[in-house]
Amino acid sequence: MGADYKVAVIGLGSMGYGVASSLLRAGLTVYGYDINEAQMAKFREAGGAEGALADVAGDLDAVVTVVLNAAQTEAVLFGDGGAVPMLRKGAAVMSCATVAPDFARRMEAQCAENGVLYLDAPISGGPIRAADGALSVLASGTAETFAALKPALDGMASDVFEMGDSAGAGSAMKAVNQLLVGVHIATMAEALTFGMTQGVDPKRFYEVITKSAGTSWALENRTPHIIDNDYSPKSQVNIWPKDLGIVQDIARSAKFSAPISGAALQMYLAAQGMGLGAEDDAAIAKVYAAMAGLTLPGQE
Amino acid sequence: MGADYKVAVIGLGSMGYGVASSLLRAGLTVYGYDINEAQMAKFREAGGAEGALADVAGDLDAVVTVVLNAAQTEAVLFGDGGAVPMLRKGAAVMSCATVAPDFARRMEAQCAENGVLYLDAPISGGPIRAADGALSVLASGTAETFAALKPALDGMASDVFEMGDSAGAGSAMKAVNQLLVGVHIATMAEALTFGMTQGVDPKRFYEVITKSAGTSWALENRTPHIIDNDYSPKSQVNIWPKDLGIVQDIARSAKFSAPISGAALQMYLAAQGMGLGAEDDAAIAKVYAAMAGLTLPGQE
Repeated sequence: MGADYKVAVIGLGSMGYGVASSLLRAGLTVYGYDINEAQMAKFREAGGAEGALADVAGDLDAVVTVVLNAAQTEAVLFGDGGAVPMLRKGAAVMSCATVAPDFARRMEAQCAENGVLYLDAPISGGPIRAADGALSVLASGTAETFAALKPALDGMASDVFEMGDSAGAGSAMKAVNQLLVGVHIATMAEALTFGMTQGVDPKRFYEVITKSAGTSWALENRTPHIIDNDYSPKSQVNIWPKDLGIVQDIARSAKFSAPISGAALQMYLAAQGMGLGAEDDAAIAKVYAAMAGLTLPGQE
Repeated sequence: MGADYKVAVIGLGSMGYGVASSLLRAGLTVYGYDINEAQMAKFREAGGAEGALADVAGDLDAVVTVVLNAAQTEAVLFGDGGAVPMLRKGAAVMSCATVAPDFARRMEAQCAENGVLYLDAPISGGPIRAADGALSVLASGTAETFAALKPALDGMASDVFEMGDSAGAGSAMKAVNQLLVGVHIATMAEALTFGMTQGVDPKRFYEVITKSAGTSWALENRTPHIIDNDYSPKSQVNIWPKDLGIVQDIARSAKFSAPISGAALQMYLAAQGMGLGAEDDAAIAKVYAAMAGLTLPGQE
């Protein structure tokens, strides 16, 4: 394979740029597209291939979309100048955004109408693992689709969880994971600030809880941001009203009552309402602190 | 020290019996007391020392209380036939129940009036670690108190977290830990059953999530109970309305809004309302299953 395998990455944000760079490092021919021209230029300087999507699309083996949500996914695949109608028969799309399972099934069907394969492939792991080619992918699609995308999956992921043989299953598991992570981050903030009202220092909280039954991956990952007063966005607050909103949308369709993730969603909405949307998601602790009259480490 | 060190363990339930057995194995002289005569007889057969509390109390170095809650703790320390007034000056009490910090401070003060030391020492780790002498203790009290209880702490715990030099701090950290564990167990159940509505098999949920960002200690520990249809109580549903109730009581006193643990508390109350109180706390998944018309593994 190597350079004979031609792939376009659409969306060169913090995740997509890492994916595109990892695919370059894997020796593939990689085109990078983004609405931000500077990001595209930066990627070409780093070794990205030259050419407008309309000019190269017919020659591509794969398109990997690493955009924010379902609306952006549909736009880059089927909107004005969208990729799918320009692809050759048998080319494959890997869709990495977190979307509802029904949306993924619809995209798979629309791709099939164009003779294009579709992998429902939400990713997990954050920008650092994206840059290292070490993402987790929760993927579902036909065996033919997995085979067609193998060079791309090999280059960007350390773990590919095969969730089923059609679109929807990958997105379902991603929603399950996001329900857990979203609640765990918010609960860490609730517990940390609750502890502060009882004289428990955040550093001591971290030391003790990470060795206790109360620990979670999210707590271990996010608590240091609060202790260090570092709210530069590794993962934004804005992710959570979107992803827990998808969870609630799916739950409503399924007549499934999800009260705990519903409560967590309200706290992320409050964080957005307080103007914290673009901060790291650990900033949800600022909502609790404001509501309780507490001062987090390093804050005035 | 060894057999010269005389300790009474009050409360020989699943946790207390393990603590008492571990102290025996550590070579101490151990008296065991419980309202259940059969448990007391069993412990004496296993090597427990003979004698009514009233007869031996004046000779004890320490009393370890491993009872259910604050009311039972107060009863065995200061109620009718309670231990503290019978102890010698300088003897020490280690209180292991999960209680409110204010209650722990009151017990410390009442013990001090009797010339008795008090360690606020909630435990964590479950019956298996109790039997192995490998509990975690979140302890606070004076240096003199820690020193007086060292043989007991050494015999029952693998980790002693020293939280401060007076009662209250240990119970505060325990409440923080219980907030997290209680929410994490309920959220596991919410996510597992939510996944089932989207075709995610509980086994696959466990395989994928334990390797993903959505994992927690509680999820890794409790999910297998659901997959195996094993609701024999390792830790009962009944624990959580009590412990999350303590969290909410503390929160109310501190004017602290705790919406996520409040939502989790409602689900445990529903589990009790469905008659599941004495089952393993993983049975909270049965509430979600009932509300969504789902059938958990192995259930009719």
